[in-house]
This record gives sequence, C-alpha cells and structure tokens, in this order.
Amino acid sequence: MSYIIGITMGDPCGVGPEITVRAVAEMSEQDRGATRIYGNLKTLEAAREIVGVSLDLAPLVIDIEIEGAPLPWGELSKEAGDAAFRFIDRAVQDAMSGEIGCIVTAPINKEALNLAGHHYDGHTGMLRHLTNSSAAYMLLASERLKVIHVSTHVALQEAIRRSTTERVLATIRAGDAHLKRIGYENPRIAVAGINPHCGENGLFGTEDDDQIVPAVVAARAEGVQVEGPISADTVFHRAYTGAFDLVVAQYHDQGHIPIKLVAFDTAVNVSVELPIDRTSVDHGTAFDIAGKGIANHGNMNSAIAYARKLAGGKNNQGEAV
Amino acid sequence: MSYIIGITMGDPCGVGPEITVRAVAEMSEQDRGATRIYGNLKTLEAAREIVGVSLDLAPLVIDIEIEGAPLPWGELSKEAGDAAFRFIDRAVQDAMSGEIGCIVTAPINKEALNLAGHHYDGHTGMLRHLTNSSAAYMLLASERLKVIHVSTHVALQEAIRRSTTERVLATIRAGDAHLKRIGYENPRIAVAGINPHCGENGLFGTEDDDQIVPAVVAARAEGVQVEGPISADTVFHRAYTGAFDLVVAQYHDQGHIPIKLVAFDTAVNVSVELPIDRTSVDHGTAFDIAGKGIANHGNMNSAIAYARKLAGGKNNQGEAV
Repeated sequence: MSYIIGITMGDPCGVGPEITVRAVAEMSEQDRGATRIYGNLKTLEAAREIVGVSLDLAPLVIDIEIEGAPLPWGELSKEAGDAAFRFIDRAVQDAMSGEIGCIVTAPINKEALNLAGHHYDGHTGMLRHLTNSSAAYMLLASERLKVIHVSTHVALQEAIRRSTTERVLATIRAGDAHLKRIGYENPRIAVAGINPHCGENGLFGTEDDDQIVPAVVAARAEGVQVEGPISADTVFHRAYTGAFDLVVAQYHDQGHIPIKLVAFDTAVNVSVELPIDRTSVDHGTAFDIAGKGIANHGNMNSAIAYARKLAGGKNNQGEAV
Repeated sequence: MSYIIGITMGDPCGVGPEITVRAVAEMSEQDRGATRIYGNLKTLEAAREIVGVSLDLAPLVIDIEIEGAPLPWGELSKEAGDAAFRFIDRAVQDAMSGEIGCIVTAPINKEALNLAGHHYDGHTGMLRHLTNSSAAYMLLASERLKVIHVSTHVALQEAIRRSTTERVLATIRAGDAHLKRIGYENPRIAVAGINPHCGENGLFGTEDDDQIVPAVVAARAEGVQVEGPISADTVFHRAYTGAFDLVVAQYHDQGHIPIKLVAFDTAVNVSVELPIDRTSVDHGTAFDIAGKGIANHGNMNSAIAYARKLAGGKNNQGEAV
C-alpha cells in the first residue's frame, strides 16, 4: 500500500477534468507529490486553460489516450464512456498492486459507459468487478451525518429481503471498522428500522424484530457500541444533532434522503470493504456546465481529504506507521 | 361549519394541558373568542398555575370529567387514556355538527388509550373511525417543506403494494385541493419515486413505471401542476430549496425522514380528506417533562395558526365568506 492517492478524472466531457485540475492546483507541494491523476493529458490541459491556473500537469498524469482529445464539453459519447472506464481500470490495477493507497473518483456518465459496452450500475459495481470482490458497502460521509447502507441499487421490495440478520450485522461491522480507521476510537452506531416505528411490536411488519434486532444484539456481544433498530423518522435527526457517529440505513433512499437534504452535493461517497480504498464526489457529470470553468470543486477537495486519511498512516513503502 | 377552532388537550398526564394553556393565554381577545378547549377544567387549572399565566379558563372549556383530577403528571394511566379519547370524541361530534370549524389535537399516548380499551394506531385512525370515513391522508407541513403520504402506518412491504395508480392519483388530488384551500393558487407538486432512482428504467423495480407514472399522467390531464416520479434522494432537497410546494411521499419514512430532519417537532400534522378538518402538533406527550412548565408550545401555536387558515373564510354562521 502507498500514501499516494490516485484521482480518476471521470467522463472527459463532464466537470471531472476541471474540478480535478482546480483541486490539484490548490494542493500544497507535498500533497501534490503524493497525488496522481488517471486521465487524459490533452483534456486536462484544456481544462487547466479554462479554469485559468498555472500548473505543470505532465509529471502528475498517467496519460491515457483518447482519439481526438479534447472531446467537446457536455456531449454524451461512447469514446468518453470508454475512456472513463480505462482511467478507472488502470487506477484499480495500481491500487491492487499497492502503487497507490486510495482512488478518488470524479463523476462518470452511466449512459456513456453503456454506449461503450461497459454495463455497470455505477462506480461501485465496476470496482467490485475489477477487484473480484463480492461485497462493498456505500458510506456517505458529511460533516455532521454519516450513513452506511445495507443495500443500494436494488428495488425496494428486494432491499427489504436483503435486510437479513447476516447482512445487517456485516454492515454494522464494516461501519465500525471503517470509523475506527478514520480515527473514531469507539464509534457510536445507530441502526435504522425498516418499517415505520420499527414495526411497533409487529403491528406494521416483523422484519425489525425478526431480522434487525438479532443483528444488533450480536454486534453488541462483539463489543460494538451500537443501538437499534431506531425508528427511521428520528434516528437521522438524532445522529445529525450529535447522538451518533454513524447510521446504518436499510436501503438506498433511507440513507440518501437525509444526506442529500443536509449535504447536497457535498458528501463524500466511500466504498467500504473493497480490497482497495476509494472515495468519490457525490455529484454527477453536470454536462450542462462542463467546460465553463464554473463547477465547484469543494466536494472534490473533501473526497481528496478523506482519501488522504485512508491512505495516511502508510509510509513511502506503504507500510503502516 | 364554523370559524371556531376546538383544541383537544390530549393525555391529561402529558404536556398537552400546559402547551394548550400557554397558547390560549397568548392569543388576542378576538382569537380567544373563536377558541374552545375540549378537556378537563381541573387539569387545565393545574397547568395554568404551573406555567404561571392568568387566564379565565372556565368560559373556554368544554369540561369533561376525570375522577380524581388532576391526575399525577408524567404517569401512564387508563383513566388518562380514556379521558383523552372522550375529549376527541366530543370534539368530533361538535365538528360534525358544524359547531367548530377545525380540531387541533394535543398529543395523546397510544399505550394509555390501549389500556382504556381504545385500540387505534393514533389520532388518524380514531378520527377516521369516529367520522365513518374511509380515507385520510397525513400531510406534514413545515415552513419550507410540505409532504403528503400515500400510506403511513403499514409495513414497508404493504406500503409498496399500496402505491397503486389509483391511490397515488387520489393522494395527488387531495394534496392539490388542500394547498388550494390554504392559499396556493396553482400548487407545484412533485411525486417521489418508490425505488432508488425511480427504478432506473426498470432495472431496480417496475413500480415507478407501472404504477406511479400513470397517476402523474392522469393528474396532469386533469390540470394539476405535478411532476414525477422524481428520485426520492433529490426531490426533497429540491422542494426544500423552493422548486415545489408539496411532495407526495410513497410511504411513512420517505416523508417523515426529511420533515423530521429540517423541522424536528415543529411541523404541523394535518389530516386531509376527512369529513372534518384537523391539525395537530407533531410531537408526543413527553411524560418526562410534563407538569414542569418547561414544554415549548411553539408547535401548538403553528397547529392553531394552520387550523385558523382552514376554519377561516367561514362566518359566524359557518357560511363561506
């Protein structure tokens, strides 16, 4: 492992190149020395001119060719989708071999990926496939609210079926281990219920009692500081106001609704339990404003800072320090 | 119908009596003249002493007897549960006969109700029963975000089944009609999707395409200004920041999570489509602080103000003006 982070510049026609350039330009010399960009140099140079910063990009970039680059901003294309895939593919190889310690992903366009024949539900599916891993949990981290999901991109019907004791327990463990890695000595975790009022003693569904309660009991027996299930309509407010460091959400919207409300486009998306570390911005390619030099790179800065925390504690040789 | 509002004081051992007294004490003479309290006079007098206001309660109160009143604060009891039921029962009779124009409910305790043999899932079920009505939609109204629910106190599995075209359409219509009543000329309504990303073209579930889309199409054909389904992870943020006046949530937690996050204990709970009008505070009996004179009555003030909007536009004889 390595303390170096690798930023994939995302879809070449989106805002990825410009937010990457802006973020790298703002770094200290030392941080820049611990940064690589997986992208296309000509596109990044074009983005650099647009945002008007001076920065010697060539030594930082793992240059991956795109015919006809730079491609027109804001246009969906197969070439762009394929290039976005190749940036990630290469970064994953380098992360697997230990050359970089964490990947930071700029936004990709799923439609462009599909046009290029890469059929994934997004970054996470792609990363799972490229690393041959079976599980990955999506954690969304904002300043005052952090959420990890038992399931994400599945129908709500299917999500209910996936909230098994085994899976909820695995998610609690993954969240606990992750928060310890980023510096929480004894993370306070809350598990959200799946039915209204956690089913109110079986009156509105039994999944909370049958599936979730045993997972919380088992996690507590392992020494995890976890409470729940707690009614979903209050648990996010309680966590947001300081009662918990992390909420385990049972399904995609349960975790995304509160995060998007309190930290729209500013949360860091973290893949937990993959063989490699990866953080991401939480917004899309924003084709409507791409190439105009007006995209905000605050979320990219946060994703990079989070990545440094994960890659930190590793020395030049990638050994834990 | 009437411009007079009727406040039910809720569980006699909770914070209901004191927030009722505080709110009524703050009213203008004119508003107080258009207010009745359905409760127990001895309990309300005790609450008045605790909060330290001077107010002649007797002319305002429809006094309903409780043996041994005032009961001890903060204690669960069958007597209290039965009294809470009788306050509401009487208020509903008066609303049905047109003597009062809107009921405002202070919090009740479901366990106390059950002890007294009144088995309801809360106020709404009770009101539905007492008014012999088949449907009622829960609308939660805060300053910047308003949500109406397709279903509420049912298991999430069952909620998915209830998001039928017919029911979603009925909820859109109910929300549209209600917002017009409270002064929105042409309400902008958004319908939340039920699956993540509204199922992403059937990839994660088909309910959005099969059930919700036709409801939105039908409502638009009727002239309702409605959009959707819109991915639940963005629609609440968009409404909160001004894009929509009302969101149709498909299930309890989908609507409650965002409201409780941005307006904890301050939203007004409104029953829509009952034969009578009813607003409510959005918090519980708070037995832990009852009788201490410290309960905040801000939410009660909001519920009362909303009730006056609904009962307004009616003259002394209850005719529309």
